[in-house]
Amino acid sequence: MKDDSEYEPLTSKTLPDRLKNLASVTSLIGKQSEEWKVTEVGDGNLNLVFVVHGKEASLIVKQALPYVRIVGDSWPLPLRRAFFEHETLTRQAARDPGSVPKIHYFNEKQAIIVMEMLSPHLILRKKLISGEYVKGLAKTLGNFCARTAFRGSDLSLPTSEKKKDTALFQGNVELMGITENLIFTDPYFDAEMNHHTEGLEPIIETLRSDVSLKREAQKMLLKFTANTETLLHGDLHSGSVMCTDSETKIIDPEFGFYGPIGFDIGMLISNFLMAYFSQPGHRSQENLEDYQDWILSVIEEIYSTFTSEFSNLWHNERHGILFPKSLFEGQGHSSEAALCDMLQHIWSDALGVCGIEMHRRILSLAHNADFEDISDLKIRSRLEARNLLMGRQLILERDQIKNISALQVLARKYNSETHL
Amino acid sequence: MKDDSEYEPLTSKTLPDRLKNLASVTSLIGKQSEEWKVTEVGDGNLNLVFVVHGKEASLIVKQALPYVRIVGDSWPLPLRRAFFEHETLTRQAARDPGSVPKIHYFNEKQAIIVMEMLSPHLILRKKLISGEYVKGLAKTLGNFCARTAFRGSDLSLPTSEKKKDTALFQGNVELMGITENLIFTDPYFDAEMNHHTEGLEPIIETLRSDVSLKREAQKMLLKFTANTETLLHGDLHSGSVMCTDSETKIIDPEFGFYGPIGFDIGMLISNFLMAYFSQPGHRSQENLEDYQDWILSVIEEIYSTFTSEFSNLWHNERHGILFPKSLFEGQGHSSEAALCDMLQHIWSDALGVCGIEMHRRILSLAHNADFEDISDLKIRSRLEARNLLMGRQLILERDQIKNISALQVLARKYNSETHL
Repeated sequence: MKDDSEYEPLTSKTLPDRLKNLASVTSLIGKQSEEWKVTEVGDGNLNLVFVVHGKEASLIVKQALPYVRIVGDSWPLPLRRAFFEHETLTRQAARDPGSVPKIHYFNEKQAIIVMEMLSPHLILRKKLISGEYVKGLAKTLGNFCARTAFRGSDLSLPTSEKKKDTALFQGNVELMGITENLIFTDPYFDAEMNHHTEGLEPIIETLRSDVSLKREAQKMLLKFTANTETLLHGDLHSGSVMCTDSETKIIDPEFGFYGPIGFDIGMLISNFLMAYFSQPGHRSQENLEDYQDWILSVIEEIYSTFTSEFSNLWHNERHGILFPKSLFEGQGHSSEAALCDMLQHIWSDALGVCGIEMHRRILSLAHNADFEDISDLKIRSRLEARNLLMGRQLILERDQIKNISALQVLARKYNSETHL
Repeated sequence: MKDDSEYEPLTSKTLPDRLKNLASVTSLIGKQSEEWKVTEVGDGNLNLVFVVHGKEASLIVKQALPYVRIVGDSWPLPLRRAFFEHETLTRQAARDPGSVPKIHYFNEKQAIIVMEMLSPHLILRKKLISGEYVKGLAKTLGNFCARTAFRGSDLSLPTSEKKKDTALFQGNVELMGITENLIFTDPYFDAEMNHHTEGLEPIIETLRSDVSLKREAQKMLLKFTANTETLLHGDLHSGSVMCTDSETKIIDPEFGFYGPIGFDIGMLISNFLMAYFSQPGHRSQENLEDYQDWILSVIEEIYSTFTSEFSNLWHNERHGILFPKSLFEGQGHSSEAALCDMLQHIWSDALGVCGIEMHRRILSLAHNADFEDISDLKIRSRLEARNLLMGRQLILERDQIKNISALQVLARKYNSETHL
């Protein structure tokens, strides 16, 4: 494959021929391309994904399509999102080594990334629906959020480098546009692509007639679009995490953008809360409580790991222009209170994003299997109602809910209530 | 002058020869370049500025130097700041027609902008030191801040255009670096280029041992460097404003950057407060009170004009992605409370920037003639102390000081106190 040949989507049939001359590929899965087994496995919303099995190893080949896969070519989406995915992956690999798949090859014009095959990893969302436990899950995710956030910010990077990178990622405008519309705005009015489970109408009416709620959601949008605090994954839900029973990797950062530090951690917590609320639709009473308790404990540990690693980096890697040591330690003054304020700022933003994500996954275009897989619509809507109403409280009270314990208390409370 | 010839600084002698073939110049001041009168008038910190008089008209020729003029070639500064000045000027002219000088010619490689000669305008700071009144001053400045802020933000611009422009201005990194260091950080430690009036040491000690103050100043730096809410002038003090007794123009936006909406208005108010506090060093008791009252009334009117015009644009030009009508008016809901919150957010940021600017002009590298022209050091330091201590209160209590009247009350209180 030449680097400058015209873009053409891969198929299982054309893939071997097109990749067989890449040394970075054949050195791993062998030169006998006729022996490769190729399967298209993409189940996401946007891209083609192939597994390529050679004799001794396997690879993932991911290719962007010039449109949104779940909608079709009526919704064009530029191929350069593969470029931003590649750029984000390389930065994440440097900032939190081992957290993301290794990249073997990248072709910008073809929008192709060839990367490490994660096996026997499965998408975390599926595991959460199945009721499986993953050892070390929270530690990996909490550290990932802390390290990528801190090391991509003006707390750490030389500010000229950070500004150059911020400028680069402003180019990921169409994917930021998806977030701006589908996440922050569409849930709060009758947008064209919205859909929801029958029976939720009274709750939706409650949300859309709450002017304070819409105001606060839009304040979060202002932060999303204008607070370029650090480079974020941008789509960090349980479908962007792959695990064995003891290893966790983060994938799919094509929504990478510079935004508020709390964004990734907020979206992540949100998706665990949705897993939590949806559990009664997936298992019998017997195993329910233990598994829900485990999910809440994962949320707690993600956040405690995040704060602990962020604090560690604050003390040991604070070389950027923000909160310089010359103003604190250099004058014999502690920077601990400044760190606490920063963590509080991150927490507040995270709760805001968390609540909004809880809304959009029920009301906007792209729903979660956690709820969608529940075929009994009465049960589904009852569980979704809890999720929607807790989301509302998080958005409105993000400065009053002081810590992760308070969040857990709230989750248990909504989990025990019936609103429909 | 060819567009691509090597950069060479102009002198009064070489200027006519180098500009005589530009139609945009000769059509205004005539082709007889040997009859032009050229005077270098640059009294700013950074650039060469020439007045060129032809028979029937005059022009300003501004050229960036590859270093900081007040420091010398030991402090290099890239020529592309002229590019950012030109880009900012064109946007300001479009967003608030008539507020900035007309541009007749721009040469990026030579870092030259030829622009309208403002005459008989004088630098506002000199007028404030002389005790002169300017009719319509507050209206022009308040409208300028509101219109450029609103029309450069995601409240108004298509977000793809806003992101592209944000990316462009991230390149103004060296000038942002000056602000990050000289304004937000240097005042709060013993930085190399700092200097201050003898006698201020106890006040400086108070400020630097106030950990909360330094923390809040650094939170404002986080906003400066990461909240790309709108395109700002970036250096909007009374030395960047030129007036007759009834006309006001804004000049010199080479510090143009995407930052918090409150930045320009905060810096502007700060410079009026410094004019206010320095008055006792410039005139007799007889005229003092009237003139100080006038300065406070200008501050009040700038802010009331700003809020009134910002509100007008909110209601009539809110076509961006933020606070869309589909969520408010489109559902029969008022967006008035959202507007109030936005104005409160801007006001809080403005007060923070205001207080920090009041510190850096007394403690950091670049001081104000308002205080520097007071030759009696005892009087000067006493007035500077009032300014420093009020600055501290503004930074610390920016969320408690609710409106412009409260700010005026504070100014009068500090103006009547003796701290040294």
